[in-house]
Parts: sequence; structure tokens; C-alpha cells
Amino acid sequence: MKPLKRLLITGAAGQLGAAVRNRFGHIADKVRLSDVADFDAENAEAETVRCDLADYDAVQRLVAGCDGVVHLGGVSVEDKFSKILKANIEGVYNLYEAARKNGSPRILFASSNHVIGFHSPLDRLDNTAEIKPDGLYGVSKSFGEATAKLYHAKFGIETAIVRIGSCFPEPKDRRMLSTWLSHDDFVSLVVSVFRAPLLGCPVIYGVSANDAAWWDNSKVSYLGWQPQDNAERFRAIVEDQSPMPGRDDPAARYQGGKFTTDPIFE
Amino acid sequence: MKPLKRLLITGAAGQLGAAVRNRFGHIADKVRLSDVADFDAENAEAETVRCDLADYDAVQRLVAGCDGVVHLGGVSVEDKFSKILKANIEGVYNLYEAARKNGSPRILFASSNHVIGFHSPLDRLDNTAEIKPDGLYGVSKSFGEATAKLYHAKFGIETAIVRIGSCFPEPKDRRMLSTWLSHDDFVSLVVSVFRAPLLGCPVIYGVSANDAAWWDNSKVSYLGWQPQDNAERFRAIVEDQSPMPGRDDPAARYQGGKFTTDPIFE
Amino acid sequence: MKPLKRLLITGAAGQLGAAVRNRFGHIADKVRLSDVADFDAENAEAETVRCDLADYDAVQRLVAGCDGVVHLGGVSVEDKFSKILKANIEGVYNLYEAARKNGSPRILFASSNHVIGFHSPLDRLDNTAEIKPDGLYGVSKSFGEATAKLYHAKFGIETAIVRIGSCFPEPKDRRMLSTWLSHDDFVSLVVSVFRAPLLGCPVIYGVSANDAAWWDNSKVSYLGWQPQDNAERFRAIVEDQSPMPGRDDPAARYQGGKFTTDPIFE
Amino acid sequence: MKPLKRLLITGAAGQLGAAVRNRFGHIADKVRLSDVADFDAENAEAETVRCDLADYDAVQRLVAGCDGVVHLGGVSVEDKFSKILKANIEGVYNLYEAARKNGSPRILFASSNHVIGFHSPLDRLDNTAEIKPDGLYGVSKSFGEATAKLYHAKFGIETAIVRIGSCFPEPKDRRMLSTWLSHDDFVSLVVSVFRAPLLGCPVIYGVSANDAAWWDNSKVSYLGWQPQDNAERFRAIVEDQSPMPGRDDPAARYQGGKFTTDPIFE
Amino acid sequence: MKPLKRLLITGAAGQLGAAVRNRFGHIADKVRLSDVADFDAENAEAETVRCDLADYDAVQRLVAGCDGVVHLGGVSVEDKFSKILKANIEGVYNLYEAARKNGSPRILFASSNHVIGFHSPLDRLDNTAEIKPDGLYGVSKSFGEATAKLYHAKFGIETAIVRIGSCFPEPKDRRMLSTWLSHDDFVSLVVSVFRAPLLGCPVIYGVSANDAAWWDNSKVSYLGWQPQDNAERFRAIVEDQSPMPGRDDPAARYQGGKFTTDPIFE
Amino acid sequence: MKPLKRLLITGAAGQLGAAVRNRFGHIADKVRLSDVADFDAENAEAETVRCDLADYDAVQRLVAGCDGVVHLGGVSVEDKFSKILKANIEGVYNLYEAARKNGSPRILFASSNHVIGFHSPLDRLDNTAEIKPDGLYGVSKSFGEATAKLYHAKFGIETAIVRIGSCFPEPKDRRMLSTWLSHDDFVSLVVSVFRAPLLGCPVIYGVSANDAAWWDNSKVSYLGWQPQDNAERFRAIVEDQSPMPGRDDPAARYQGGKFTTDPIFE
Repeated sequence: MKPLKRLLITGAAGQLGAAVRNRFGHIADKVRLSDVADFDAENAEAETVRCDLADYDAVQRLVAGCDGVVHLGGVSVEDKFSKILKANIEGVYNLYEAARKNGSPRILFASSNHVIGFHSPLDRLDNTAEIKPDGLYGVSKSFGEATAKLYHAKFGIETAIVRIGSCFPEPKDRRMLSTWLSHDDFVSLVVSVFRAPLLGCPVIYGVSANDAAWWDNSKVSYLGWQPQDNAERFRAIVEDQSPMPGRDDPAARYQGGKFTTDPIFE
Repeated sequence: MKPLKRLLITGAAGQLGAAVRNRFGHIADKVRLSDVADFDAENAEAETVRCDLADYDAVQRLVAGCDGVVHLGGVSVEDKFSKILKANIEGVYNLYEAARKNGSPRILFASSNHVIGFHSPLDRLDNTAEIKPDGLYGVSKSFGEATAKLYHAKFGIETAIVRIGSCFPEPKDRRMLSTWLSHDDFVSLVVSVFRAPLLGCPVIYGVSANDAAWWDNSKVSYLGWQPQDNAERFRAIVEDQSPMPGRDDPAARYQGGKFTTDPIFE
Repeated sequence: MKPLKRLLITGAAGQLGAAVRNRFGHIADKVRLSDVADFDAENAEAETVRCDLADYDAVQRLVAGCDGVVHLGGVSVEDKFSKILKANIEGVYNLYEAARKNGSPRILFASSNHVIGFHSPLDRLDNTAEIKPDGLYGVSKSFGEATAKLYHAKFGIETAIVRIGSCFPEPKDRRMLSTWLSHDDFVSLVVSVFRAPLLGCPVIYGVSANDAAWWDNSKVSYLGWQPQDNAERFRAIVEDQSPMPGRDDPAARYQGGKFTTDPIFE
Repeated sequence: MKPLKRLLITGAAGQLGAAVRNRFGHIADKVRLSDVADFDAENAEAETVRCDLADYDAVQRLVAGCDGVVHLGGVSVEDKFSKILKANIEGVYNLYEAARKNGSPRILFASSNHVIGFHSPLDRLDNTAEIKPDGLYGVSKSFGEATAKLYHAKFGIETAIVRIGSCFPEPKDRRMLSTWLSHDDFVSLVVSVFRAPLLGCPVIYGVSANDAAWWDNSKVSYLGWQPQDNAERFRAIVEDQSPMPGRDDPAARYQGGKFTTDPIFE
Repeated sequence: MKPLKRLLITGAAGQLGAAVRNRFGHIADKVRLSDVADFDAENAEAETVRCDLADYDAVQRLVAGCDGVVHLGGVSVEDKFSKILKANIEGVYNLYEAARKNGSPRILFASSNHVIGFHSPLDRLDNTAEIKPDGLYGVSKSFGEATAKLYHAKFGIETAIVRIGSCFPEPKDRRMLSTWLSHDDFVSLVVSVFRAPLLGCPVIYGVSANDAAWWDNSKVSYLGWQPQDNAERFRAIVEDQSPMPGRDDPAARYQGGKFTTDPIFE
Repeated sequence: MKPLKRLLITGAAGQLGAAVRNRFGHIADKVRLSDVADFDAENAEAETVRCDLADYDAVQRLVAGCDGVVHLGGVSVEDKFSKILKANIEGVYNLYEAARKNGSPRILFASSNHVIGFHSPLDRLDNTAEIKPDGLYGVSKSFGEATAKLYHAKFGIETAIVRIGSCFPEPKDRRMLSTWLSHDDFVSLVVSVFRAPLLGCPVIYGVSANDAAWWDNSKVSYLGWQPQDNAERFRAIVEDQSPMPGRDDPAARYQGGKFTTDPIFE
């Protein structure tokens, strides 16, 4: 028996969404894919729904009938506040209101390492680390985390708050030797989250088993998630292709890397 | 020499604002009082400015020329999300943008104990406690805290994040024997914040020296703030006038008290 | 309104029981005093019940009708295991079974510093300190603490586990400059315990506000208990009358003092 | 040279005892097997002694001549207090008294995860976790732990306090995916305990290297014990054969699982 | 009976030595005052000895016959390495060797806040704080601390390692509102150290009960030392006479203040 | 591109220096080998420089032109204070002064486990453990650590403080089952230190991935160093060849082993 009847994936047309959206057939009877953009799911069995997360009523309809949600939707890089406000603040509120009124599905919320991006790489963080967002995007993700905690404490909705590192096919620079999350490891994390008898509302770092990792997931060992990939395998290539940053380069000084100096504010 | 040239107080017409707005003449050459509502400052020397915090340009003008801000403005109870979004999310963003573009004044941000309201009274919290908001209001205050941290790390703007307990003339129920902040102690806290050579961006619990306090400010002892009042003085009256809550009453179970069951979500 | 209808005090004829048994009229409509020995309560308003704690049925009757218990009964010094087994192990089990079947009264359980007596005086302990009993008496008190926690988690019975230091009219030796609990401070602790809306099952060190204290009660600040006495007042007399122990004297090396070398085991 | 001259195993006829009793020939010149029940050791080289642990004198004789003890004896499930009192409280006292008078053998004391059974699976525990017994059995094991600590501090007897998870041939339900201890891993733990130059009196979680483990043994890494088995290997079978518990099912809510609702108290 | 027979005070002619050297008659039958410079003890009952701490044999003679030492001698500001090497490194080695060979007197070692001077004032430190010396002087004091610990662990010599803040008649600048130690409080600390039955080898911050203190002595509460002075009393004068440092001024950024930029290295 | 232009290795003729000095050609264009003794580098491409670390001017010349230093030089066992003073105190000061005046090369400082040698093997240590040196050698290494921290905070020179365990071809006794560092793992550590974009000034335990390790390097995971060897492989041989120490043998009681009883002080 599969743990879910219907799994909703928002942001299904994004980079990460596209890479993983068709890999959850074994944990849900039905998969519903959604994005604000048009896309071809390339999967005859999936439902696809176009939906703007800032539209309260549309989100109610989107969530109805789902007992699991992987929430990848919204803005996923630094941007103007007005855009972030719509997608990542109003959008998240809409999602949780929809969950509250539609059977309290379990949610995996794609938060981000940029919630803690102003920490130094010299500091190892576990999931109790102080919030230190490195931009408006990071602030909006911390809003989402706070919302998830509210709906858990007040209404019993369980959320896995996943602070995704760098989820790409391969690590692309020296920072990603620490922050890389392989697509395979993300998929196995989703499975762990939805098969757990009790989830609670934990913060989880979405990161592969990298030798040079900065983040410590030991407090969520109860999930039994064991990432299998390791960015170290790509070290030679990465060091070859990306220059050594200077010690004062934000790419070296802060976990959030270049986000810490994003010029969005000009 | 006074530590500030011009101190801005937002929310000056609110309960707390009204009680304290005319008590800072000794730390600022000029005081500017602001509210979204009309009010009579009853103080010939103060500037008064009517301003809606959700108006980006108006907030720019409001902050211009100030080197200190006590930000009491915004919604201060649980409310509809649309209202909170305007006042406490857009409003806070506007305030920090105004600070960034207008000389980076030092800010005292009135956050709230409702940011951690779903903790149990059995748990003593210091300023590293996990965020556990007890409503949309609490979520919005945690947004403000995250914004303050961003502008500190990225732009050097210092903020005292003050999680105010219950700031009233007297404690009014049993919970306030723990959470009460006297007006006098709030005033002395403001003074401590603006006289400190280095402030950083600390979280401070705004609470008097109550025997039954839940919150531990020892990590901000560098401010030299020593609250002088103690709610215990009012215990007999309070116990007389407010019934003993049952153990399952939210007023007993959670630090946030009745906020944890506010019916705003219906 | 008084917080209790009927308060049971066991061990009422012991040293501590006799000193405090008639001081709780203001928190309970009725006081029931009990001991295994005969005694004269010198209080016309108190009920007195002779009861052996090792007698299951008698304890059921003793607890019936009480909504508060101060459990001072049992053996209170190091002794043969057979005696401790009866009074402090079977007796405590009987008490909690009686509580479970008779309305779940709130309990103050007189535990002892001898539960942690093998710690060094150089170590400051809070209520999460490792158990290090200094004798069979201390082991039996740790049994009582574990029993209290079980009945709290499983049946909701609240207990204040009070690790009493040295509760005498005055400190009698150098160790008691650290461990002394005045009778007045014990009485005010009892009041704090029974007036709290929510108690839980905390460990509390029963110690006055001694300058040289070893124990940290900050985690139970929610009770609002503020001891007023300080053994330091007696330092000159104590140092005069009791010789300086050598560094290898158990009275200096361990918090439990002479209990750590009690010859009961021969 | 083997580390032990004579190893005593109590409870040798129980489930765990029977599975491992004949696997220690390489660490002891002689093995003495004991149980309150009759049993056939199926091992010509082992001594077998029938012994009731509640019999003080018999236990003295049982321990005499042994320099190592694996104490598996006593009641190992929830039971009436009278039975637990005899076997697990008087029995443990008798064992330590026998050890004290008979050369202070090193002891492995089979404690239990039920000492901490009322913790949530969401909480990762190390060996300083608060005692939260889930029944009378758990309380009795915490008595044994306290006794072990007393005899270590006072008499120098070293004990490995092993909080055994679920020691069976295979994990039998979803909870055991976290708590399983394989027989092989238990055997290697025993070896580690008796070969260590210095043991002290540590608490060790008896659990295999399960992906979904709740318990952290890093503080006892000095033993060099590295469990080799992993319950994850059995996940598919287990999930197939045991239904997903609801979130309010004790099997999901507490580490102690069904023990937390054992009806022994009726 | 006084706790000491003969108390040696080194550095008795220095600023601090001169202020306190004649205030210990009540804790020692004899006081021996020493300095590398000539001085008039103004105390007919004191022995005075001129001694260069870098002279091994002279220090042996100096310590002989003393059961208590207050070691104020050596260089007490930033200086050339060659001077610090002689006075604070060889000198401390000589002192401890003399103690080892002359009856193991108890020692109060005047260490310094400059051992931790590169911490931020925003960080509250207890006595487990990381060493962060702010100059060669601070490094030499950390050498002294390490030496004290060695002689305690290896030879049983007890030392109170006192990290003195700013021990002057009055606080002289804003930093001293946090770091001031009054002479009276230093004297009472010395008394506490020598009257304690067991001292161990603790680190103690030498600081009065300043409202704005950075340092936490709670771990040495066993000494019963309660400083009585508070630099806050001088705040108005201090703020009047010393300008507000900028946020980037070392006087504001680091606990060590100006020591962090001492130009000794040029 | 190699991370270093010229790597200086001091103490290149010592046991460890000789074993590894010719294994860094892949991380530095040039290698400069130095020792106070004559030696044959057996490497035509290496520069060799004879240098006494106690000679300030010679050390200036030695460091000039190097952007990396592996500092193995100095006394590496317990010895007379006069020798340790020259080599390990003056020598380290000279090295850091040379670094300050010659381009601030990154340094790997060979500290030692003897800085924390008086801890018990029962205590797992991370890099915040209290300093507990087990001899003058250990004290001198803690001086070096403090010096490294000063030059980092004040002048920005980065140092990897490596507390080397027992760096030999194979573990030679039971203690080394915990403390062994293989030559291969030391080499990979050096590489990790010099390839890191940001190093800071961390304390790192130089120890292989031994099953029975006492030390926890998780706080420096950002280096990505993953030791590959495990002393456990040698357990059978080691246990065969070295007798079981008694519980009171320093080899069993302290992490520093025999160093704790070195008779250098007679």
C-alpha cells in the first residue's frame, strides 16, 4: 500500500520540479503537478494544474483531494520584494490555509539555505541554528518556516521544512562541494518524509553526504534518510573550473555565497 | 550630549506609544511622533507626522533625518492576514528600506512574545529559543525579526529586537505575573538601547523583573538594562480577580495564552 | 479562595514535618496530618491519621479526599536496605497508586540532595544533572523521582520533586553554608507549588538563597519561588564551631558530605 | 590471554540469554550460566546454576569467583509491582551486594529503552537524556541504573548500563526499524565492554546501526564498539507486514511504543 | 583561627598590590610582601622581600614557608616579548616550581581579561569561553593559566585563576562600566578563595556586580563570593567625561578594548 | 594550479617530518625543508635550510617567500623547561613574527593531544574542550595555540591548530587504538588545510578514523577532511603485544597516557 493517495507537487515546471516530478509514482496513487507556467508533464498518468499561488481560491482547489504536498513553487532566487511578497508570502499563506481547510495534508516545504546564509562556513549548523537570511528571498523562506510551525502547533498540520542547499545535477563551484544536493538524494528525502509514521515539523538540511558539508542533520535521524551522493567525487573538476576565491570574497566568507551581495536592492 | 539627534517613534498613538512617547526628551534633541491615526501629542516640542507604514514613499520621508527609531507601529493583536500583511510585513519592509536609504538609524523593533507563544510556561527561554508563533500576528513579528537581521548583516543597521511581554500599567491576569513589562521598565530599556556604544542585533525579552518570569535576558547583559518592577507585587489582587485556569486552558498551557486559540481563522 | 480543599502532609511527626505542619492553613481548607508514629498535632483544626506507608490499603484511605499532598514520610537518612525498601520504595509506590485512584492530587515529593550526592562541590548543578546517589537512601529517592515522572507522563499526576538540601532551623556546619534550606523558605516553596496554574513534574532544589549555593533553580523560575534566607548570615558562627575539613575529607569532596562514607554497608 | 577468568550470565534461559549465552568462550576461561528456571545450556563447558535473584545468600554464592557479569536476569516486560519488586529491585540490590563482597567484578547491566520510553521519536537522545520511564518495568530499570552508579562511585565497581532497544533475530514492526539490536551486535558490545582497560559506569544504548535510530552513542566511542547491522535491510518486509500506525497511536508517539499504554495498572 | 599561616603577595608595589596589600591581616598570621622594585610597605607587621620572579632560586626562597600566595607580580600591560617572557613566562614557571617544592601553597593567580580580549562585548562569557588573547600580555597570561592547570592536575596545587577586569578606584571609561573591579570586591574575593574548604583550579572573572557586566561567574558560586560594588553608580560621570566610541572603534568592538590595537609590534 | 607557491616544512628531519616531507609536491610549486639538525632530504627538488627556531633573524629569512608553513619543528616530547622555552615558546613567537612580516602565510601548527592530556578517556572531546596539559610540553603547545589565535585575530594570519594524536607507521599500544594518526591521513589533512578557501584558526584533532577514537572533529567538517585509516585493524596485534593496563595505570586513566607521570620534574 502506498503511503499517499494523491501527492501534489507545486513548482513542477521549475528546474528541480522538472527533474523529479515523475519519480514519485511508487509513493502515491495519483500525482498532481502544478505550476504558474505552462508545461508538458511528459507523464500521461499525472494530473496537471496551472495555478498562481497568489490566488487564494485557486490554491484551495489545487490542494483539495491531496494528502501530500511537495511545495517547490514560488520565487527561488533573490528578486524584487513585490514579486517575493506575492509568490512566497501570500502564496505560502494561501497554501497553508488550503491545507487547513482540505484535510490537513502532510507538506514538504522547500525552504532554503539562504535562511541561514549569513553564517560563516567555519560554523557547523544544526537545525537549531539562528536565522540569518542573506536576502529578501531568505527572509521570505523564514516566513514560510514560521507559518509551517504555526499551522503545526495550532492545527496539527505536519511539515518537513527542507532547507535545500544546491540541488543540481552536479556541483558547479567550490561552494557546492559543501552545499550540493543530488536529485537522487532529494527524491529519497521526499520518500522518507511521507513514509514516516510521525513527522512533526522538523527543519532538515537538504544536502547530500558531502565530505565538506556544513550542516548537521543528526537531530532528524528518526526519518532514516541516508543521502548516498557526495560532492567530493567532483572536486577535481570543480577546482579545475572555478578559481580559488579570495578570503574576502563573499563566496568564501558566507554560507549563502553570492546571494549575500545580490544587488537587488539598488 | 544626548545620544540621539532625532528619535522617531512610530505607533505613537497606540496604548504603549501614548504611555511613553513624551518620556525620551533626555536622550534625543528632537522627537518625531507618528501614527496612522490622528492624535494629539500633548507635547509642544515634538514633531508629529501622520503616516501609513504601508506607503513606501511616506515612510522614506518619515525616517529621513532620524538617527533613532522606536518602531511600535503596525497591528499589535491577532487579525486578518490582509491587515497584517499591509501593516506588519509591507510596513516593516518599508521601514528598513527607509533606514537603508536614510543614514542607517539605530532601531528598536517592537516584536512580541507571540513569536514564541506556543512554548510551554514550564520552559524557560533565552533569546536563542525556537520560533513558535501562536498566530498570524506572531508570524508577522518573526518576519520583522528576520528582516532586522538581514539589514544588520547586509547593511550594518543595528536593531534591538524587543519581544514585548505584556506592557500595561499593571498586570491584569495570572499570565501577566510572568509576562508583565511596566512602562517605566520599557522606558529604561529604550534608553539602554540608544546609549550602548555597540548594539548589534540582539533579541531582548521586554519583561520586568518578575519573580515568575519565563524569559532569560542574561545574554544581553552588556546593555546594562536592569528592570526595576516586579509583577509579584500585584499577585494578591490578580489572584483575587482572575480565576485559576484549568490545566488544559490555553492560558495555562502556552506562553502565548489566549492568542493560541484566537478564532481569527474562521 | 484557597487553592486546595484538603492538603495531606505525610511524615508530619518528623523534624521537618513538625516544624512546618501547622503553617498551611492559608492554602487549604483542611489539613490532614499523618505519620507512622503517634504525635500530637497541637492544632485542633487538623485531621491526624496514623498510617504506615507500606500498607497499600491504608494509604488508599489516607489519600482519599485530598487534592494536595506534601510527602515528607519515609526514611530520611541512610539505613538498612530492608527498611528503605519498605518505607521509600513500597511506600512511594503505594502513594502514587493511591493518588491515581483518588482524583490525582498534586504532590510535593520530598526528594533529597543525596540523589546527586557524589557530585563535587566544584560543579554547579541544575535540574538536569546526572543522578549520582550517595547511598541506598539516595537510590530510593531516585526511585521516587522516576515513579513521579511515570505517573505524570502516564496518568497526568503533577509532582514537584524537591531535592531538599539541609532543612534545619540554622546551618550547622560548613557544608550547610551551601545546602541550607530555612523552614520559612520551605513553606514558601510549598505555597508556590500549590498555587501554580500548571506545575508539570519539575525537579526543584530545596535550598535557600545562599551565597555559596551549588544548585541552580533557574529552570523552574515559572513557579515564582524566591527564597529569602541566606546561610551566609551564619558563616562566622559556623566557621567558628566547625573545623576546616581537609581537602580529602568527604565533607569537602562531595556534595553529599558524610553520607558518601556512611558505614551502613558493613 | 582472555580478559576474563569467569563470566557469569544471569537470565541465561531467557530469549536473549539463550541466543547469546554460548558465544563468549573467547573472552572468558569459564562461563557460568544462571536462571531462575531450569534450562539445558547445550554447552558441556559451561557451569549452570539455578538461582533466584531475590535470594540474597544464593546470589552471593552465584557471583563468587566471577570477574565479569552479564546481568540479563529479572523481569523483562511490564508486570505487577510485586513481581518487579522481587526480581528487579531486590534482585539488583542482591547482585551489587554480592559484587561488593566478591571481588568487584565488572558488570554489564541490561537496562532498557523503557527507562526513557516517554520521549518522543522526534527527539534524538544521548546518554544524558532525562529519565522518562514508561511503566513499572522502566522505573525498576532506572532503580538498577542508580544502584550501578552508587556502587561505582562508592565502591569502584564498574558497570556498563546498556539500555537495550529490541534485541530479536529480526525487527518485527515499524518501531523496531529504529530500536532493533541484532544478536551479533549485542555480542560484540559485550566483548567491547570486557576488553576496555577503563570502563567507568557509562550508559550505552543497545541498538544496531539502524538508519532510523533515535539514540546517539557518540559519548561512549572510547569503547570502540561499532555495531554492524542495520534494520533498514528489513524495511520492505516490515512495512508490508505491519500497518502504518496513526499519529496518535502510542506506537508512533512515544519511543516506548505500546509499553506506554500497558494495562497492568487496572 | 585564620585560614593561612603566611600569605605571600607578589607585585606588592604595583598599583593593585599597593591598594590591597595591607588588608589581609585577618586571614593570615603573617603577610609577606614582595616586589622587584623597592617599596615601603607602611606596615610594621609585614615581611618585605625584594625578588625578581625570573630568578629561580630567589623565588624558591620567597615561597618557602608560605601556605598562600596572591600572585600579582610580573608585567601587567602589553610590552616587548622579551620582557613578558622573563616576567610572565619564566616567572610563572619559577613560582609553580617553588610551590611544588615548598608545601604546595594555595595560589591566587592574577590572570587578565586580556586572555579573552578579542571576544565581542555582545558575547556573554562564562569560564569555559574560548581563549582569544588580545596581545602578547594576554598570551602570557594564558600560559600562566595552563601552568596552573598542569600543577593542579599533576601535583594537586590549587589555584584560583582570576581574570581581572579593570581593578581601579573608579571606572575611568565606558568600557569599565562593564569591566570594573573595585578594590573592596577584590579583597573579598581573596578572602573567599582562601577560606574555601575545596578550591580546585577554577577560572574566575574578577569583576564587580556591574549592571553591564559581560562575564558570568555562576559556575564558581561555590566560593560564595558576592561582589558588592557596581560601576553603574559612575555612569553619569563616565559618560560625561569619555566620548561615545564609534562602532568600529576597538574600544567598542572588543572586550579587550585598546589592547587589541596596541602598537607594541611595530 | 597548485594552491601554494612555496611550502615550508619545519622539523623536516624529525620522525614525522621525515615520513611526510616529500609528499607535498602536488600542492606547492616549491617545498622548503628545514631543521635544526643536518639531514639529507633525498629530494633534489626541495630546498633545505638549517635553522634554529630560537634565532629570530634566521626564522625571518626562513619564512620569507613562503605562502604556506607546516610547523613540525621544536621539542616534541616532555623535556626540561629551558629546552622547551627556547624551541617551543621563543621558537613559536619567532615563527609568527616572521609570518607577520613576510606576507602572512597560512600555517599548520603541530600542536599535540598533550594539551588536553589530563582528560579521562571516558570523556569525548571536541575542539572546545578545556585545556588540561599533561606536562611542560603540553603547556608549551597551549602557548603556541594561544599565539596562533592572537595572530589570527590581530593580523589575519590563518592557522590550522592540529592536536596530533600518535603519528606513527602503526599503533604501538592500546592507547594508540584511540590516538593513532596514520602518515597517510596526516598528509591528506595537510592538503585539506591548504586547499580550503577559508581556513580561520580552527583546532583539529589529528587522528585517524579509529573505532575507539576519543576526539570529535565534526566542528571542522568544512575542511572536507576524511581520514581513511582505522587503528582497529591492528587491535589483535596490539592486544597481544601490550599487556592490559590496570585501571589505576596512567595509561588507562588519562588521555595523555604516560606523559602524565613523566619524571622530568625531579
